[in-house]
Amino acid sequence: MTTTPAPAGVLRTAYQKAVADYWNNEKDPVNLRLGDVDGLYHHHYGIGDYDPSVLEGPQETRDERIIAELHRLESAQADVLLDHLGPIAPGRRLLDAGCGRGGTSIMANARFGCQVDGISISQSQVDFAGGQAAKRGVDDKVRYHFANMLDTGFPTGAFQGIWNNESTMYVDLFELFAEHARQLAYGGRYVTITGCYNDVTGGRSKAVSRIDEHYTCNIHPRSAYFKAMAANGLVPINVVDLTAATIPYWELRAQSSLATGVEDPFLTAYREGSFHYLLIAADRV
Amino acid sequence: MTTTPAPAGVLRTAYQKAVADYWNNEKDPVNLRLGDVDGLYHHHYGIGDYDPSVLEGPQETRDERIIAELHRLESAQADVLLDHLGPIAPGRRLLDAGCGRGGTSIMANARFGCQVDGISISQSQVDFAGGQAAKRGVDDKVRYHFANMLDTGFPTGAFQGIWNNESTMYVDLFELFAEHARQLAYGGRYVTITGCYNDVTGGRSKAVSRIDEHYTCNIHPRSAYFKAMAANGLVPINVVDLTAATIPYWELRAQSSLATGVEDPFLTAYREGSFHYLLIAADRV
Amino acid sequence: MTTTPAPAGVLRTAYQKAVADYWNNEKDPVNLRLGDVDGLYHHHYGIGDYDPSVLEGPQETRDERIIAELHRLESAQADVLLDHLGPIAPGRRLLDAGCGRGGTSIMANARFGCQVDGISISQSQVDFAGGQAAKRGVDDKVRYHFANMLDTGFPTGAFQGIWNNESTMYVDLFELFAEHARQLAYGGRYVTITGCYNDVTGGRSKAVSRIDEHYTCNIHPRSAYFKAMAANGLVPINVVDLTAATIPYWELRAQSSLATGVEDPFLTAYREGSFHYLLIAADRV
Amino acid sequence: MTTTPAPAGVLRTAYQKAVADYWNNEKDPVNLRLGDVDGLYHHHYGIGDYDPSVLEGPQETRDERIIAELHRLESAQADVLLDHLGPIAPGRRLLDAGCGRGGTSIMANARFGCQVDGISISQSQVDFAGGQAAKRGVDDKVRYHFANMLDTGFPTGAFQGIWNNESTMYVDLFELFAEHARQLAYGGRYVTITGCYNDVTGGRSKAVSRIDEHYTCNIHPRSAYFKAMAANGLVPINVVDLTAATIPYWELRAQSSLATGVEDPFLTAYREGSFHYLLIAADRV
Amino acid sequence: MTTTPAPAGVLRTAYQKAVADYWNNEKDPVNLRLGDVDGLYHHHYGIGDYDPSVLEGPQETRDERIIAELHRLESAQADVLLDHLGPIAPGRRLLDAGCGRGGTSIMANARFGCQVDGISISQSQVDFAGGQAAKRGVDDKVRYHFANMLDTGFPTGAFQGIWNNESTMYVDLFELFAEHARQLAYGGRYVTITGCYNDVTGGRSKAVSRIDEHYTCNIHPRSAYFKAMAANGLVPINVVDLTAATIPYWELRAQSSLATGVEDPFLTAYREGSFHYLLIAADRV
Amino acid sequence: MTTTPAPAGVLRTAYQKAVADYWNNEKDPVNLRLGDVDGLYHHHYGIGDYDPSVLEGPQETRDERIIAELHRLESAQADVLLDHLGPIAPGRRLLDAGCGRGGTSIMANARFGCQVDGISISQSQVDFAGGQAAKRGVDDKVRYHFANMLDTGFPTGAFQGIWNNESTMYVDLFELFAEHARQLAYGGRYVTITGCYNDVTGGRSKAVSRIDEHYTCNIHPRSAYFKAMAANGLVPINVVDLTAATIPYWELRAQSSLATGVEDPFLTAYREGSFHYLLIAADRV
Repeated sequence: MTTTPAPAGVLRTAYQKAVADYWNNEKDPVNLRLGDVDGLYHHHYGIGDYDPSVLEGPQETRDERIIAELHRLESAQADVLLDHLGPIAPGRRLLDAGCGRGGTSIMANARFGCQVDGISISQSQVDFAGGQAAKRGVDDKVRYHFANMLDTGFPTGAFQGIWNNESTMYVDLFELFAEHARQLAYGGRYVTITGCYNDVTGGRSKAVSRIDEHYTCNIHPRSAYFKAMAANGLVPINVVDLTAATIPYWELRAQSSLATGVEDPFLTAYREGSFHYLLIAADRV
Repeated sequence: MTTTPAPAGVLRTAYQKAVADYWNNEKDPVNLRLGDVDGLYHHHYGIGDYDPSVLEGPQETRDERIIAELHRLESAQADVLLDHLGPIAPGRRLLDAGCGRGGTSIMANARFGCQVDGISISQSQVDFAGGQAAKRGVDDKVRYHFANMLDTGFPTGAFQGIWNNESTMYVDLFELFAEHARQLAYGGRYVTITGCYNDVTGGRSKAVSRIDEHYTCNIHPRSAYFKAMAANGLVPINVVDLTAATIPYWELRAQSSLATGVEDPFLTAYREGSFHYLLIAADRV
Repeated sequence: MTTTPAPAGVLRTAYQKAVADYWNNEKDPVNLRLGDVDGLYHHHYGIGDYDPSVLEGPQETRDERIIAELHRLESAQADVLLDHLGPIAPGRRLLDAGCGRGGTSIMANARFGCQVDGISISQSQVDFAGGQAAKRGVDDKVRYHFANMLDTGFPTGAFQGIWNNESTMYVDLFELFAEHARQLAYGGRYVTITGCYNDVTGGRSKAVSRIDEHYTCNIHPRSAYFKAMAANGLVPINVVDLTAATIPYWELRAQSSLATGVEDPFLTAYREGSFHYLLIAADRV
Repeated sequence: MTTTPAPAGVLRTAYQKAVADYWNNEKDPVNLRLGDVDGLYHHHYGIGDYDPSVLEGPQETRDERIIAELHRLESAQADVLLDHLGPIAPGRRLLDAGCGRGGTSIMANARFGCQVDGISISQSQVDFAGGQAAKRGVDDKVRYHFANMLDTGFPTGAFQGIWNNESTMYVDLFELFAEHARQLAYGGRYVTITGCYNDVTGGRSKAVSRIDEHYTCNIHPRSAYFKAMAANGLVPINVVDLTAATIPYWELRAQSSLATGVEDPFLTAYREGSFHYLLIAADRV
Repeated sequence: MTTTPAPAGVLRTAYQKAVADYWNNEKDPVNLRLGDVDGLYHHHYGIGDYDPSVLEGPQETRDERIIAELHRLESAQADVLLDHLGPIAPGRRLLDAGCGRGGTSIMANARFGCQVDGISISQSQVDFAGGQAAKRGVDDKVRYHFANMLDTGFPTGAFQGIWNNESTMYVDLFELFAEHARQLAYGGRYVTITGCYNDVTGGRSKAVSRIDEHYTCNIHPRSAYFKAMAANGLVPINVVDLTAATIPYWELRAQSSLATGVEDPFLTAYREGSFHYLLIAADRV
Repeated sequence: MTTTPAPAGVLRTAYQKAVADYWNNEKDPVNLRLGDVDGLYHHHYGIGDYDPSVLEGPQETRDERIIAELHRLESAQADVLLDHLGPIAPGRRLLDAGCGRGGTSIMANARFGCQVDGISISQSQVDFAGGQAAKRGVDDKVRYHFANMLDTGFPTGAFQGIWNNESTMYVDLFELFAEHARQLAYGGRYVTITGCYNDVTGGRSKAVSRIDEHYTCNIHPRSAYFKAMAANGLVPINVVDLTAATIPYWELRAQSSLATGVEDPFLTAYREGSFHYLLIAADRV
């Protein structure tokens, strides 16, 4: 019944191998310690205002409070993403493209009760995420695969919903949406939350290039998302500018011991208007 | 300083002449009596919940109460549209494409203090709207022109913002957005609120065709908006599905003496999912 | 040897289901009683001048005379369509896309002696047509299938000729011609007779929208046919404007007891020039 | 009132100069002697059956009889082209693109009474044609210009009708139709009669290359006409395959003293199906 | 392990059959006698300066000297082509599209040690080439197939390198490069050496049409190569104008007993600038 | 006679302002001290092997020797670029798009004797370059303008040649080549030398992002150049991979006191194959 994509030839280019290496070796506390809070390991940022009281109180538990609050904000982000999938029947199937350590897939299964396939080009992430699903006893429904989101091997029309939670900046959007369009059932829903640079302020700003360099990624202009969707039968139904909502997350993180240095370019880019944090929900036609 | 588009050759096709005739002769109470409430004459529908108490109370003033409430909802719709223009400096210029009897133009000028040009292919509407602007003493800032939105004659890059408030269903979207893109300054904002049929449910439903027939219009599929924007340098920043928010307006209107018969196909189409009421805000790049 | 398309998933959208329901329930005398004349049941209109004498004579047989004459004109139309297929060898295979109650398929088999597959999304039509083929003893050569013309399941390159006899207004032309191009052998012939609205007179006229509403269809502009063919390797070799030739059919029908009310918008649209009755023959390259 | 295109820069490429040289020096009896019959000098071929009796009778007048008959057929061709322009009011303006020695322009003026502009890149042809118009006293209405049909210098929307009578094989069709679309009024008519090679039989046959070499021209595939029209707002309304109708002209010409040697590749190409003689009438939208 | 393309339906059009016939019957000494020199039979032209001394000396061996020199130049051309394939590991596979009598395939195998598949639509060429491979004992590695380069039947991604050595003028470039892109592994290399006409001098010159007529081919404009590559994921890395380098070959050949008459249009076209001899190397992405 | 582009509105976006600021404030010794050698101030890199002896000898003049050698290599690069312009008559006009401190413009004027216009969005660079032209007494022929290369204000068809010497990474290539195509005379030549990332190795590598961040630029993939040229009538005639030829320049520079830190990502990117140094020469058709 279940089709597992073939692992052969997953990493096609030197670039993909470099990205995979990065994530295979990544053990960033900002991802691990936040996940430790409740076992939902995310690889994306948060939205919503933080509780300023976490910055106060005893120094020895300050980090703990901040970590819990950052984690709350990143789970809130995943919830907003899942809200835009619309209702999903338990018998349908979902794809988490670029699943990281698997948190959003777990939340989706918990919400809808349906089968979720998460894919990553990092074998370490796949293994880690699989372990989490097993630990929670949902590995019959939530499966993680070592697969390339540009060529997954999944059957045509197999999914009722697909999302990319901050994972589109590693791939060409025309190739990505062609593959998503192929995999979605007619009328299926696609959702992405992504950082994109602002065509209106012009080319990639210095701050945006610093983010690209940090993650070895290729942040796209906002326009590229809509061009690539228009070319691949994905029709937007909701577009939400989450920029203002994500700034508090970065401000809190910058004040924590988990700051990685990438906080500054993010805050600069968002504030100068050269970068947006965007949610797009679209239907497959 | 001000450029007025040339009136010659405004009506290019038999279809455009028929549309102009329709609106030149239209004296629908649902438009006139609602406008009489406060002198803002709209040609679009409303959003938001209505106050159910207007349906109760003395029969002789029931209509008056409903009319005031419907008008409140249609002004609320215009406010939401203007919200998405973002901040507009008083020295900039705005274009109301398909301005009807001019209500939204007046509201925009009142909000931003800037020059607003409204255009229509109905000379009667242009005259009526111009009279309203004069009456309010804003005719130095708010001007209405007999012009075709596909070929306005306005100079290139002249406008900081352009909107279509339910007027895109009379024109080809590729031609329209090409002309809008030409007229917008770099970084300018475009906003439309429109009914569009849902590609996901398939072709134009019977209810949608009844609306087309009622207004001699050509409702577009949702996908057409995004394709035509992608082809013309208009990049969405917000897309809001207003369908649920507009249904109360129609339910109230259906219960009023002003009902024109088109309420039934609108409610049917919205409820069966074959039709959306959509706001799109996009930047010119 | 013979491949039958799979029935699963034939009706993909709410729109397609609505169209199928319409035709499953349709028992319009204008189709049934005309077919009864000689057992060729058509779902298209006629061409050529009618014999005015059928309007005269005894009242009690007037209907019968008109019916026979209308049927002669609609069979004449089918003959003109088949003329444009060119010579077809008995060993080749033809596809009647949107076959209705099957009349043109029967005529094609009678003319060329070859295998003909008719497809419809109305199971009732498929059953009715299959019964007719059986009755005539040609069901070894003429087969009707419950199938979607956008995704038939027939093998690539299987057909030497394909036609749509007034059935393209239910589908997207780019999708349709992509599927036709896939199914046609290199050098195969495609023929359609269709009503299309006239880009020159502008958007869909009120009369055209009335036709759309009557049949829950989506009449295309003339230009759409040529754009979609150019994009799909279909090269016109003959285009014939049949508008003048079809008007007599509608004039006669309007005077008969079988008139359904749609005669008026057809005559209005044809006479005002907003609508054409067009034959296009094209080669697959 | 009348705009004359600027002569500067008419010949842009070495190829255009070679074509101009060819026609400046051409004094082919098959063009000159046929024109002498009644002063209508054509540069195109004929259609219709010839009267076989012209081949019989006294040898000394055989050529004269054949010449008169060939001329009758080529004038018949021009008449069919003009038929497809539809009705043209005397106050409108027509463009004969690639007018040769001007015959079709004279016939169009005689039929419609309107202004006709003929253009050629051969100054000799322009001078010759101008002399003919003067001789007939129609030079106030029929003017010939030394101009490049890809960049005429005529104003936008100036013409109600444009035709190419066998002159499209010297230019890129996308460039040509872009310029025609620019020059035609909305709703204006374009007509071409042309030889085109048949995509269905594959690439340019040896016979077609011989014709190309004879005239230094670039015969296009049939598909190119429809692609270039679709891309430039020209929508076919009639397409007529005149191949069978032109073969008699070539058979008669091959038997005359005026044969130039190109008769053989024409007859071969038409008969083997690698070449079509096509009329296309299209509307500007 | 080895996949052989299916022979069925190789010749799809009359044009392809004519080309196949031409090459099946061709026994031109300029190809055969040059190949006899060392058993490498080529069907392309040469590059580099010739040794003028071959024109001097005893008359009875003059031809022999010229033949050896022409052959040296055509082998030099094949070497330059192979240089641009870059390093090819022995375990990879190469495709010689339009292999003629097979010389370049043999050279490629000798250089890289890898498997080479040559394809031709001339069965005679395939048989001849196969005989040569057997004679050299490399028929386990070098195989020739009767196949159409537009639809080879080879598996997707099978080849590390593909070349066309003067064989692109028989096919549509968009179809050709689509098939090549399909067959090349990601990152694979494509190389072509070809004559192309110069868009800058305008349309096909008379000399170019004479070459087309001689070989029943369809020489493309230079621009067509780059458009078709851009559309099919082939990205140039080196483009070399070999025109000056190939003229000596033609000058020498024109002075030999093997001259076929096509020397004059080639020299004219190259010298007048209407024709280029171009090498393009591109990567598959 | 001379047209100077209007300075108004040169800097359209925040990005362009940031780039202008960067170059207005840049006083990098690697540019200034190299230019001091002979008064040709370049803003590009060099090609060719360096003389290893410059690294030896007295320490106090080591820098001087290296600077002279680096300057020799960058002037050699400019010479190769100018070689690909082909012959330019003294009466023609050239455009140096992104002229920096003006060195290549001076060299072009010295070689061809013709008028050269250099443009930059850095007013400081324009002033500096203008001063150099005055000092050399060529300011009647070599003029520098504060202008945006995407919208120069120069007349259509004004230039026989245009080049970008390492300045394309600041702009969208489709917009750039559209403007270049507009400005070039038919048959004019365009040349660029540029760094581009390698589609074959995948997305932007970390090293490439470091270069982007250093210069606030947007390095394009190689494929983008050919797509944008194909879309804008620019047809390649020579493409040269200069990667191997530029590596020595970087190796020498890395050993000098002028090293800015960007040497390491350049050398890494070139050596790992993720980045190319490419020359493209193309004709305008």
